[in-house]
Amino acid sequence: MSQPLFFNLQATHNPHRWLLPLSPAVCVGPPDNLFMFGGVGMAAAIAALERTCGRPAIWATAQYLSYARPPSIVDLDVWVPASGKYNSQARVIGHVGDKEIFTVNAALGARESEHSTQWVQAPEAPPPEACVEADHWRGGGDDLHSRIEVRVAQGRYGGARAGAPASDGRLLLWIRSREGLPIDSTFLAIVADFVPGALGNALQLNAGGNSLDNTIRYRRIVPTDWVLCDIRIDGVHGGFGHGSMALFAQDGELMATASQSMILRVF
Amino acid sequence: MSQPLFFNLQATHNPHRWLLPLSPAVCVGPPDNLFMFGGVGMAAAIAALERTCGRPAIWATAQYLSYARPPSIVDLDVWVPASGKYNSQARVIGHVGDKEIFTVNAALGARESEHSTQWVQAPEAPPPEACVEADHWRGGGDDLHSRIEVRVAQGRYGGARAGAPASDGRLLLWIRSREGLPIDSTFLAIVADFVPGALGNALQLNAGGNSLDNTIRYRRIVPTDWVLCDIRIDGVHGGFGHGSMALFAQDGELMATASQSMILRVF
Repeated sequence: MSQPLFFNLQATHNPHRWLLPLSPAVCVGPPDNLFMFGGVGMAAAIAALERTCGRPAIWATAQYLSYARPPSIVDLDVWVPASGKYNSQARVIGHVGDKEIFTVNAALGARESEHSTQWVQAPEAPPPEACVEADHWRGGGDDLHSRIEVRVAQGRYGGARAGAPASDGRLLLWIRSREGLPIDSTFLAIVADFVPGALGNALQLNAGGNSLDNTIRYRRIVPTDWVLCDIRIDGVHGGFGHGSMALFAQDGELMATASQSMILRVF
Repeated sequence: MSQPLFFNLQATHNPHRWLLPLSPAVCVGPPDNLFMFGGVGMAAAIAALERTCGRPAIWATAQYLSYARPPSIVDLDVWVPASGKYNSQARVIGHVGDKEIFTVNAALGARESEHSTQWVQAPEAPPPEACVEADHWRGGGDDLHSRIEVRVAQGRYGGARAGAPASDGRLLLWIRSREGLPIDSTFLAIVADFVPGALGNALQLNAGGNSLDNTIRYRRIVPTDWVLCDIRIDGVHGGFGHGSMALFAQDGELMATASQSMILRVF
């Protein structure tokens, strides 16, 4: 757990308390109004949880309550209400000053087990080298999106709307870090917050969403250069949308599943 | 929101504070060691949230921390850290005495919107009348399972293992209340906690799971006599499993989606 991270998580004197200074590199939005990308809050919480508990995350859900803007510092406080032989139940409160930004609830742990199966299979997709690169709302050029390479394997995505819209609500993306960061539990948590980017493709409109939550479930993380994200918008109604994602390694291993609910924005 | 509920949720002098007395009718497990069914805790929290906030739930995730046993009384405290024009972000702490049993984080709200689409379609399934009824671990005959009728449309389920195991990890169940209770947000939350019952079918073993969480996302609830549950175990590894569910009305409307992570138990 000493690999480089996408964000600048800092330890403190207290093993249950962490700091995350915000810079544009972990933010999104208009250049004059940047805010922390939700998935970064989730990922920083997972990093803090894994380090505090000394166990890998099994599942985590982030509830997004407010926005944090650079150059503020997010405090992450880890609470562990239940800890057993094989797993811990824990949570992180992320706040700036006394303002709560997000809460992450999670389970962490690992057990010996002979059973390792995946029933969800990777979709047929051209390799990343054969896919069009998306230029996703790059803003000033130094925000989060400038650090993540996205290639569109199916569906329409990004500022220039690469690809053709798909009536089945499905979007296939290859994603990796431009800086060559490893694909670990934290990078997958950031990627899991890309579900709202599939709303426009599903509705065949210029649309997006604000995440209400971000949920990730880890099956097995294996070495891979790219993540294949199979994103589906399940449905929209009453101004809200719900979507899910399966995250595969290049060899087809199911590494994680994710889901989100979103406030629908049609532009 | 004054329809009869599956459980005995009681108001108090404080609109943010509710009580849930436990009886065998909301519990599962061996007759001499009954405990509250997780989905009942989730559903009671959603009922409390909807009544306190005066808004319908959009999404909710329950984190299960401990067991509550009859005849104890669960206190449900509703906190609303963020409330806007159209939606509220809220949580419920469920506890017995000072022991925390579960935490539910949720968003609630509704907005005017012309967009209502579902991309997830109901599977082909014989009607409930044509399906085998499952006798699910009925215990003493007065626990939760005795109050819920389950018919198996595809896959293997229940104490007598009705149906044939399916190698695709998929289980299709028709579910309704034997007492004719309406299918509302709370009944769907109880049903959403049936994902672990699909582990044995997926692994083709005598297996089950303990829920670590229960997540539900509501799209649109419509009048229906039965819920069609399309349950998939996505994958298992390292002693844990992850699954998802799509919940349809009899006319094929996608009412909700759900997902869970579980401790895998092979008997």
